[in-house]
Amino acid sequence: MAPTNSLRLDRSTATDILSLVHIRSVLQRLEDTILFQLIERAQYAHNAKMYAPGAFAELKTREQWDKSWVEWFLKETESAHAKCRRWQAPDEYPFTDEALLPAPILPPIEYPEILYERAVVNVNPTIYSHYRDELVPALTRAHGEGSDDGQYGSAATRDCDTLSALSRRVHFGMFVSESKFRSDPAAFVGPIQQRDRAALEGLITKPEVEAALLVRLASKAKVYGQDLNNLTPSADGGTPKIDTQVVVGLYKEFVIPLTKVVEVDYLLKRWVQGPLCSSLLARHLQTDQRPSLPPFLTGDRLDGLSSQEIEELQKSKQ
Amino acid sequence: MAPTNSLRLDRSTATDILSLVHIRSVLQRLEDTILFQLIERAQYAHNAKMYAPGAFAELKTREQWDKSWVEWFLKETESAHAKCRRWQAPDEYPFTDEALLPAPILPPIEYPEILYERAVVNVNPTIYSHYRDELVPALTRAHGEGSDDGQYGSAATRDCDTLSALSRRVHFGMFVSESKFRSDPAAFVGPIQQRDRAALEGLITKPEVEAALLVRLASKAKVYGQDLNNLTPSADGGTPKIDTQVVVGLYKEFVIPLTKVVEVDYLLKRWVQGPLCSSLLARHLQTDQRPSLPPFLTGDRLDGLSSQEIEELQKSKQ
Repeated sequence: MAPTNSLRLDRSTATDILSLVHIRSVLQRLEDTILFQLIERAQYAHNAKMYAPGAFAELKTREQWDKSWVEWFLKETESAHAKCRRWQAPDEYPFTDEALLPAPILPPIEYPEILYERAVVNVNPTIYSHYRDELVPALTRAHGEGSDDGQYGSAATRDCDTLSALSRRVHFGMFVSESKFRSDPAAFVGPIQQRDRAALEGLITKPEVEAALLVRLASKAKVYGQDLNNLTPSADGGTPKIDTQVVVGLYKEFVIPLTKVVEVDYLLKRWVQGPLCSSLLARHLQTDQRPSLPPFLTGDRLDGLSSQEIEELQKSKQ
Repeated sequence: MAPTNSLRLDRSTATDILSLVHIRSVLQRLEDTILFQLIERAQYAHNAKMYAPGAFAELKTREQWDKSWVEWFLKETESAHAKCRRWQAPDEYPFTDEALLPAPILPPIEYPEILYERAVVNVNPTIYSHYRDELVPALTRAHGEGSDDGQYGSAATRDCDTLSALSRRVHFGMFVSESKFRSDPAAFVGPIQQRDRAALEGLITKPEVEAALLVRLASKAKVYGQDLNNLTPSADGGTPKIDTQVVVGLYKEFVIPLTKVVEVDYLLKRWVQGPLCSSLLARHLQTDQRPSLPPFLTGDRLDGLSSQEIEELQKSKQ
């Protein structure tokens, strides 16, 4: 049976894509991908030169590139993927300024309406900074202070892969927000109206799920990070290829908090950009006997609701 | 301490690079990389369309590309890496015709003389065919016959990574040949002269090392391929993400035999391209009291011996 994490977005319904089963499957499988990529990156040294803008004069003189070696690799990789319309997918966001990326050579794909496009958030600059300044130094600590092995191509390739997986993980938070919003739009009205971030966080996150995630992640890091070479009967798995604490810390201090920012920002923008509700929603709310509707919910504007949502609301009225 | 598998080739001596400790470390670490990439690829469907030449009309009309989607991804990726002089490294070989790849934008690196350049073998076409026709179908069998999930970009990215790792693994066989040749050149004279492939294989391979490799690989596949999601106390690791037998079969039936072909072909070409020996070597052989030297070994030509070898032979005479 095909794993549920590789659902084809262009041939699935928004309901399937936004189901919690699908979202959980994608997020858990991404933990493995992120871990594998981190383990691959950790075999190379820190190589600070790779992240320093202008450190390779030839990139400037021959490619008119002022930024770093790694950002150049990202641009090259993301350009190839742009030609294959990767950045049109609702779960993929480039690190490179989209103005620098070529147009797709393939015709556009029709995706179902999943995210409210004007609410979409791109936090890749934050991910890149954290990766460069915190994660890579921690990940490569075993190589020694200021380590440089000159493996700039191999290391940058792993950087691109890791950043891409982290980006997909964090931005998938918008799918979580959209899914929870659709499952109970009325619950979000008050907190959004009051710009109550804490209440919104409360609606979309579960502390027990986060706690379980960190336990699972530590266990994955220990298992997948084992060095299984040169095992003797008495060996305990050799020197781990990755520091479990770095991985757990990455999620606990960065991925989870940043995902929450993305989730809440998305919900707030979903509101600000257009009235959240329609008369359909208003009627839905009334059926649920929720007491008070803000006056602007009684209009007939559909802005901010996808046709998929409208359809679902209609179904719920039948 | 830095892992020995990320030795910087341009700052190390040929002796360090060709040491069996370094070679073993690279090959064993590559097992992990190959496994990780195979596991990543296995989450997507077979997607036969990706490997069919001309299946994407736009690649033909807009990119003048007659070959397959995956080969286009390889060309794009390898072009970016060509700019960073990846293909000048003695352990890296592209799948794309080098005539189609751009020139490096970075100045060339001075590598020590490691391989005898005119004997170098590139078996990437064989690797690609096997990957497309045998490995991908076996790897994705769990998705069902003729499976297609439309994840062509994600799957092709994993294809490029997997092919690249397999290519490096197989071509590293030339380092093995060179290392063993340098450690005892005289032993190779007879078998090379007689074009005795079996004897040459005997000189460079050890059945017990191969057997241990397959055992280690199976254990790695089981450990790294575990599904660690949704574990209950009674769970046995969930459905594996990869079939151990496919991985072991890949090495047993393809990687190891093809590596031997590369190793032996390299040794044979090393000979044919130029007299194997010099008077230095001849004197070295005499010191070792080896009985008979073929007459053509008594000349003074150095073709076929790197300066590094000559230096080492000189040292061994001091």
